[in-house]
Amino acid sequence: MKVKQFQEIEAEPVNMEGADHVFIRWLVSEKDGAERFAMRLFEIQKDGRTPLHQHQWEHEVFVLEGDGAVWKEGKEVTIPPGTAVFVPPEEKHCFINKGENLFRFLCMVPIQKKT
Amino acid sequence: MKVKQFQEIEAEPVNMEGADHVFIRWLVSEKDGAERFAMRLFEIQKDGRTPLHQHQWEHEVFVLEGDGAVWKEGKEVTIPPGTAVFVPPEEKHCFINKGENLFRFLCMVPIQKKT
Repeated sequence: MKVKQFQEIEAEPVNMEGADHVFIRWLVSEKDGAERFAMRLFEIQKDGRTPLHQHQWEHEVFVLEGDGAVWKEGKEVTIPPGTAVFVPPEEKHCFINKGENLFRFLCMVPIQKKT
Repeated sequence: MKVKQFQEIEAEPVNMEGADHVFIRWLVSEKDGAERFAMRLFEIQKDGRTPLHQHQWEHEVFVLEGDGAVWKEGKEVTIPPGTAVFVPPEEKHCFINKGENLFRFLCMVPIQKKT
């Protein structure tokens, strides 16, 4: 069993094209022995966002803190803390910090298609 | 894409033997179109706990609030909000509310082995 505080895990900058002021902490991954899905914590700073994109794998998201929004079918939908989001494979999406403070959320992905 | 507040989703009592004062909200499941893993939110009330057990599938847990502990190799380990826990397949575990207030955590499981 692995037990970790999220702050112990490095926040790595996300360098993907279109990602702006985004950091990722890999809370549970293959390094921990997880074989099927991974748990990551995203931190988007003020004025930051993830790229508007789509891919073959799903996301399962839970919002922890901040004033964030998700791009859904051309509109920005507010997702306050306590919001769960399921992004099916191939659906276009991005996550945007609309506030002054850090926007934090968990994002789970299947391991076999994490890249 | 599905977007929901966790409070909108029913908290169902967990009736498994050994579960005491435990409720589950299925935030993302097969009903939403998820095929590989599910996101559930557990709520354990004061003096409550999940059963001490083991099974063939893993858990990926993130603690949201409360004063909780996880049973790990015979000892109770405190897991404050912000703790990530990976429980590998076949490892014995249970989650215990050690405080006065609700203990809330997310628990992800593979869908093919959720029962």
